[in-house]
Amino acid sequence: MSKFTQSPEDRLIARYFRPLATAPGAFGLIDDAAALTPPPGCDLVLTTDGVIAGVHFLADDPPDMVSRKVLRMNLSDLAAKGAKPLGFLLSVALPAAFGEAWLGAFAAGLAEDAARYGIALYGGDTDRTPGPISASIFAFGAVPRGKMVHRSTAQPGDCIVVTGTIGDAAIGLALRRDGTLGRRLGLSDVAAAELEGRYLLPQPRNALADAILQYASAAIDVSDGLAGDLDKLCRASSVAADIDVARVPFSDAARAAIAAEPGLRETALTGGDDYEIVLTVAPQNLAAFRAAAEAAGVATAETGRVQEGEGARFLQEGKALSFARASYSHF
Amino acid sequence: MSKFTQSPEDRLIARYFRPLATAPGAFGLIDDAAALTPPPGCDLVLTTDGVIAGVHFLADDPPDMVSRKVLRMNLSDLAAKGAKPLGFLLSVALPAAFGEAWLGAFAAGLAEDAARYGIALYGGDTDRTPGPISASIFAFGAVPRGKMVHRSTAQPGDCIVVTGTIGDAAIGLALRRDGTLGRRLGLSDVAAAELEGRYLLPQPRNALADAILQYASAAIDVSDGLAGDLDKLCRASSVAADIDVARVPFSDAARAAIAAEPGLRETALTGGDDYEIVLTVAPQNLAAFRAAAEAAGVATAETGRVQEGEGARFLQEGKALSFARASYSHF
Repeated sequence: MSKFTQSPEDRLIARYFRPLATAPGAFGLIDDAAALTPPPGCDLVLTTDGVIAGVHFLADDPPDMVSRKVLRMNLSDLAAKGAKPLGFLLSVALPAAFGEAWLGAFAAGLAEDAARYGIALYGGDTDRTPGPISASIFAFGAVPRGKMVHRSTAQPGDCIVVTGTIGDAAIGLALRRDGTLGRRLGLSDVAAAELEGRYLLPQPRNALADAILQYASAAIDVSDGLAGDLDKLCRASSVAADIDVARVPFSDAARAAIAAEPGLRETALTGGDDYEIVLTVAPQNLAAFRAAAEAAGVATAETGRVQEGEGARFLQEGKALSFARASYSHF
Repeated sequence: MSKFTQSPEDRLIARYFRPLATAPGAFGLIDDAAALTPPPGCDLVLTTDGVIAGVHFLADDPPDMVSRKVLRMNLSDLAAKGAKPLGFLLSVALPAAFGEAWLGAFAAGLAEDAARYGIALYGGDTDRTPGPISASIFAFGAVPRGKMVHRSTAQPGDCIVVTGTIGDAAIGLALRRDGTLGRRLGLSDVAAAELEGRYLLPQPRNALADAILQYASAAIDVSDGLAGDLDKLCRASSVAADIDVARVPFSDAARAAIAAEPGLRETALTGGDDYEIVLTVAPQNLAAFRAAAEAAGVATAETGRVQEGEGARFLQEGKALSFARASYSHF
């Protein structure tokens, strides 16, 4: 009886994205909007982050890596706030040259990570664009009411802790941009692949969210470079931080690269895309926090102390480093 | 003491967007994420919609119209679900050629509408792009728990009601794309400006949200064209709809355009960007709904009935119209 058929856009959404809409309130993505019944006694933690081809990823990166990267960038923000991820909405714009196969692989990567992190797709928006591929995610999680971990609450005397390793992604991006750099640095193929992999696919520290919620006095997601992001935490908290560069956690691969080319130390400390967390912990909570982190399988390193003052200072053999560019800025 | 200064990106956010972050849980946009304490007894309604220059607006549209349009597109979704808007997050990507003045005007428009609709900015993401300007908004509102109005709950026998007027924006876009069309149609400058204005700046029906919540059996935001959107509602509800085209509400300006060029009737019925609402109401609730709509200052028109069957049918003098393209699809 009807003169209409399902639009191509609706068909693509039904085929590739509906399987990710596993929450009852997502209504199989057939409605204008989703409904979320907030977990009792909780605040919702809201964040958004996006990627643009040529800016945040390389245009020929595998589509499943692109979708997982943008989701994980958002998950990393939730982890730093001590929040348990609940779900996300997706906005994606595709050039005409990128067809259904690209979108299918993009959705498959997203489905894999949605399952891995136990979250559902609640809605989205799919467009054609005359520009490069772009994707934005709006993610939300839950914390006990009033308990979101802030940037602005570090106290003088707190220990400064960094998760995982710093600088791998920034060095990995340099390797991807310069095909002969790895050989010039004398890196093994395995080491180069490890660094490049950290750029391609972040490893957000959501396993640590409960420990952060319980023990951190302040925390920030390291996405624009450790130096700049720690400085933001300091300024928001009206404190200073002295970081002992010798105690900043570097991977063996990053150490090898920096040993061959010392200028890469600055790349590592100020480059973006780490998706680690830098947090502050009162000294009396440090042992308990580190035990919880170890139980969660996340490496942590104590790298310095919060002081009275303003801003972050990186000390090497007692001397403050001066960086050409403290952190990534789009403007 | 610090070696760092505020990044240009942080400065722009502080200057232009922080004034919109009026909710306590937005933390002045200085944190990784926002916190929202959900209103007691409510579900959150979540939606996202975005715009790309050259696709959803014209590249030389005034920036304050662009920001207000994308916000209102999202507000329209919330209105159709019976939700009270609470806040939003924004993701915006700007080409290098668009400088601070553009962003300032964009933010000023957003601030005006945020105040008008009583909502706050909770966070965002600002990027440079090698592509066209784009902006996505993630908006959230509240409904009493379990009460979100769906597409999928229309019942045979329900009345079909359309708010405002249909087709103005689609005809307005045709006028903007063809500078001589208005004269060829014999439209006055005032009529042409009225139609173009409806494309430039939607008038979402949030004033009607309470009445929709109370009386609608189902509802959908008319953003991709009345014909296609009503058809979506029908398919989601497993019902049919017979619409009397003579009762579809057209503005005087749209009527004049259609009288001069009858092909524009299809443009009006299937074109996008109306940001009206088509809803179904049980006959016994129709009078109360229409009284509530009148009290809210929103015009409504009863245009047909829900039937057993599948899909929407548009009848003119008893004959079903056949459309070349039922609704807007990006793919």
